[in-house]
Amino acid sequence: MDAAFDIRFEPDGQVYEASGPVEVFLAAAARGILIEQPCGATGTCGKCRVRVIDGAPPPSDADQRVLDPAEIAGGWRLACHLVLDRPARVEVPSAARSAAGKSFGGALDLVGSSRVVQVRTLDVAPASNDNQESDLDRVAAALGLARRDVTASPAALAELRTRLAKTSPVRAAFQANELVAVGPASPVSCFGLAIDIGSTSLAAALVDLTSGEVGAAGSRLNPQVVFGADVISRIHYAGQHAGGTARLTAAVRDGLAALVDELVEATGCSASDVVAAACAGNPTMLHTWAGVNPAPLGIAPYVGTWSGEIDCRAEKVGLPIHPNARVYAFPMIRSHVGADTVSAAVACGLDRASRPTLLIDLGTNSEIILAEGGRYLAASAAAGPAFEGATIRHGMRAAPGAIDAVSVSCDGRVTVNTIGNLPPAGICGSGLVDAVAELLRVGAITPSGLLAAPEEASGRWPGALGARLKPVSGQRAFVLADAASSASGEDVLLTAPDVRQLQLAKGSILAGVTILCGKFGIGVTDLEEILLAGAFGNYLRKTSALSIGLVPAIDPERVRFVGNAAGVGARLALVDQDARARARAIASDAEYVELASHADYQQVFMRSLAFPEPD
Amino acid sequence: MDAAFDIRFEPDGQVYEASGPVEVFLAAAARGILIEQPCGATGTCGKCRVRVIDGAPPPSDADQRVLDPAEIAGGWRLACHLVLDRPARVEVPSAARSAAGKSFGGALDLVGSSRVVQVRTLDVAPASNDNQESDLDRVAAALGLARRDVTASPAALAELRTRLAKTSPVRAAFQANELVAVGPASPVSCFGLAIDIGSTSLAAALVDLTSGEVGAAGSRLNPQVVFGADVISRIHYAGQHAGGTARLTAAVRDGLAALVDELVEATGCSASDVVAAACAGNPTMLHTWAGVNPAPLGIAPYVGTWSGEIDCRAEKVGLPIHPNARVYAFPMIRSHVGADTVSAAVACGLDRASRPTLLIDLGTNSEIILAEGGRYLAASAAAGPAFEGATIRHGMRAAPGAIDAVSVSCDGRVTVNTIGNLPPAGICGSGLVDAVAELLRVGAITPSGLLAAPEEASGRWPGALGARLKPVSGQRAFVLADAASSASGEDVLLTAPDVRQLQLAKGSILAGVTILCGKFGIGVTDLEEILLAGAFGNYLRKTSALSIGLVPAIDPERVRFVGNAAGVGARLALVDQDARARARAIASDAEYVELASHADYQQVFMRSLAFPEPD
Repeated sequence: MDAAFDIRFEPDGQVYEASGPVEVFLAAAARGILIEQPCGATGTCGKCRVRVIDGAPPPSDADQRVLDPAEIAGGWRLACHLVLDRPARVEVPSAARSAAGKSFGGALDLVGSSRVVQVRTLDVAPASNDNQESDLDRVAAALGLARRDVTASPAALAELRTRLAKTSPVRAAFQANELVAVGPASPVSCFGLAIDIGSTSLAAALVDLTSGEVGAAGSRLNPQVVFGADVISRIHYAGQHAGGTARLTAAVRDGLAALVDELVEATGCSASDVVAAACAGNPTMLHTWAGVNPAPLGIAPYVGTWSGEIDCRAEKVGLPIHPNARVYAFPMIRSHVGADTVSAAVACGLDRASRPTLLIDLGTNSEIILAEGGRYLAASAAAGPAFEGATIRHGMRAAPGAIDAVSVSCDGRVTVNTIGNLPPAGICGSGLVDAVAELLRVGAITPSGLLAAPEEASGRWPGALGARLKPVSGQRAFVLADAASSASGEDVLLTAPDVRQLQLAKGSILAGVTILCGKFGIGVTDLEEILLAGAFGNYLRKTSALSIGLVPAIDPERVRFVGNAAGVGARLALVDQDARARARAIASDAEYVELASHADYQQVFMRSLAFPEPD
Repeated sequence: MDAAFDIRFEPDGQVYEASGPVEVFLAAAARGILIEQPCGATGTCGKCRVRVIDGAPPPSDADQRVLDPAEIAGGWRLACHLVLDRPARVEVPSAARSAAGKSFGGALDLVGSSRVVQVRTLDVAPASNDNQESDLDRVAAALGLARRDVTASPAALAELRTRLAKTSPVRAAFQANELVAVGPASPVSCFGLAIDIGSTSLAAALVDLTSGEVGAAGSRLNPQVVFGADVISRIHYAGQHAGGTARLTAAVRDGLAALVDELVEATGCSASDVVAAACAGNPTMLHTWAGVNPAPLGIAPYVGTWSGEIDCRAEKVGLPIHPNARVYAFPMIRSHVGADTVSAAVACGLDRASRPTLLIDLGTNSEIILAEGGRYLAASAAAGPAFEGATIRHGMRAAPGAIDAVSVSCDGRVTVNTIGNLPPAGICGSGLVDAVAELLRVGAITPSGLLAAPEEASGRWPGALGARLKPVSGQRAFVLADAASSASGEDVLLTAPDVRQLQLAKGSILAGVTILCGKFGIGVTDLEEILLAGAFGNYLRKTSALSIGLVPAIDPERVRFVGNAAGVGARLALVDQDARARARAIASDAEYVELASHADYQQVFMRSLAFPEPD
């Protein structure tokens, strides 16, 4: 069927007009609906399932492998293998939706800001006997500038000539006084690429360089995961394998290139319409992306190869956009407080905080910045991988099947929620925090971190709860999901050592916060606002974070999740010249505090391990 | 024979120590002796013949094809096919020597000048717990700069890391505040590449960026010649063939790449030791080199795509040197007064002329700049291709076999010199000027340009000369070389229309000079100095140029050949920051005079056609 047809996305009500067979994730992305494909569209994880309400095509092999017959009969399909060639109505459940779209933020206030890239539609005067100025000099004149006040690379000059030979007006993109790209006058939009390179996920958005609006956004697994799940294992890989850095570099660049190709297709623009990029990421990710061996980041004194911003051409980092496009990467504060943190600080306006404001980017390394009136203290707290599910008995990443929320009702019933509503396969960071917070509340975990023994249950908690306390291999444990309901057919447990791991993580962060506050000359309760950033933050319940004392006990109203602020910062730096200046100032002015070498650290850390008394 | 051996070059006495079999032209180039291979080392033109005095190897196929048995027996070999594997003494006759070496000039006075690229040997402090600055920030510290005051591209950062992992000190090359390249501390030299892109020949030199000395220089045919002999035919090719520009671009870039490979081999450095480049060339050459369609340069209003300088990375123009190297190209004054002329003006110090000084870059388009005290008038005189042998009955380019000098002795004997001392095959520009000058002197050509008829000969000139006057196809002609001595077995003639062509060429230049002087408010005899530049100028006899009135009749002492000054300018711009500022000032401040549209042009041109009365 080659005629045009509509695809309607529910519950949004957005309609995509297809001109032929189309992959559903592209059609959705073109309407701003981002379907996450964590397994890299291999048809294995099942996370991208959508329901085709009308017009469902026959199931794919992947559907038959991953979905059960009832689901298939109900119209469920894996979006990664779904091509639509006729009118359809498609429900995209929230579980399938990528957080990447939100990662790059909503409306930006760009009034009065100076654009990094100026996109202009120019009517270039033709050359004549009376106007023998060169093409580029006539472009300068069209801008009201003097001859030679506009420069251009050979590639841009070639583009200018080719375009002027065909038509005028032309669309010209300038960065500073350089003509970066020349295109047809219509469409008038030029895009920039905002990038957030995470250890696990790559996220990117095409941003209209004039309006600042997101044209399309998406994310995909960082292909580097095959070299190790976390930053440390990648650093080791680079350090211990000949050609390791080159492989890591190729992996992340390939992943970004594939993502860019998708976004370009989704917006219907061409790669040469993408004329700038801005990039955030942690130091290890930026080092490998830039092609620089990250090994020194993994051993004392933990020093990277550069700390300032990067400004290079797209082709230097293998981005398949306009080869002249300039790629900006945020500066870093220190080797473990990187471009992602600075980007988040810009997005959160930390430089404009007139009262003590704390930003915590939660993760294995949790970066902390305390700011007030242009003064900054920064630290990196080694929280360990508990938030990412590692070192936890049944821990897992926030992937389908992970318990991401736990609640305990008045009558002692335990309810768990899993990502994708699948049978529980394990517990991710937010589930861990939730579980501990809820058990603290009902007294099954003490403030010192002791998980109750089965014999204590009697009479204290309703039977349903008490029955879940059962020792495993001599350790106390709590059954979050029993064998009958779990994916593996075995109990999914929270063990006493798991609680201890969470204590260590939260203790590390709280100790960092406490030391920064002390050095700043304030108490933790003087904090005006606490901003929690990072992908993990998206899933965390604020009350649970406060309940376990992950952050100082201040009014919950003053604790705010800012999501993946690094992505928002990248989008800002793409359009707003001022955002780059602000990033530079933050990175330069921030004073780095080495927590581990602080005299009081051990003492403060020990004090920070205890959970708060429940209300 | 794999042991080391010496090759001694005569008459220079320079010795090259070979460690194994070596191509003679590389060994010679390494000792600053440049053997020209106009045919591109195909073993066909015979111009590169050298004599192996001791240790001659057996002749190559090319030798046997091009040389006669007596020459081979005498030790003559074609350098382009000569590999030496044992001690040898090699005479390189001047005919085989490239003018390219001279093209880039002798000693430069760089005292007090600011280098474009700073090459430094740096002892970079190791990172430690007390010095957690990044690698690049420690480089900045080693330079006495603040952190983040030095920037670097991803590639340079990768190089820095790799190098610091191995050793310190390191050799670092900086341009402005950017770390361009990092290498081992030894050798301490970094090179730059000076390039002169001619329509016929490509010339390049590797220049030590600190001392400014030429490490190696060479030239080769511009591979674009297959698309047309001159600029106009290349412009037409680009305009009329789909993909024409791309082909021209690939040709010139490939030619330069091959030349660079040769020079790198000759100096024994590596491509990554070449960290900057500076380029001169006429507007058509620069447009095609940059990948920009030159078609508009060929039709009114003759406007190019840019006029300012270019500053881009080497990889953007396909130069196989350090990919980070920045490539500079001179600005232009107008579409027909290009980067080559501005480069020559810098080399000649035209901006420092305190008295009226004239620079003429002789060629099909002869560029003229008149300068005094920072005021410049520039024009392009369409001299036509007579100087390059085109439109001349037996004209040819200055290639082997071309008559390049003619003299007539008191007793009327005519002596011709040919390039390579081969049987005369035709006449090149300098031979044409010489022939006309000599015949003017003896009265066989009148000031109005009339070639004597045979019947006038009787009694006026000795028999030998008169006998050479013989009409051909109804046109008067003069036999420069008779059928018995010529390469073709036919007379090599100078015809009356040839004389007319030379008149048109010299009239065009003289008219241009006259108009510029008039506009400047001086008479032509007020000129303090006349500088003749261009490859053609290398072969021209000054007295002949004055005799035919190619330049105004001033004291011959005040006429100077400056050779291929564009190459010297490129070398200056490579090392001396000030040279670039001077080029910018000259290009900006020069007032372009459109000769053809000047009110008096026709009248002045007609007056300029006559040859001066002989002394």
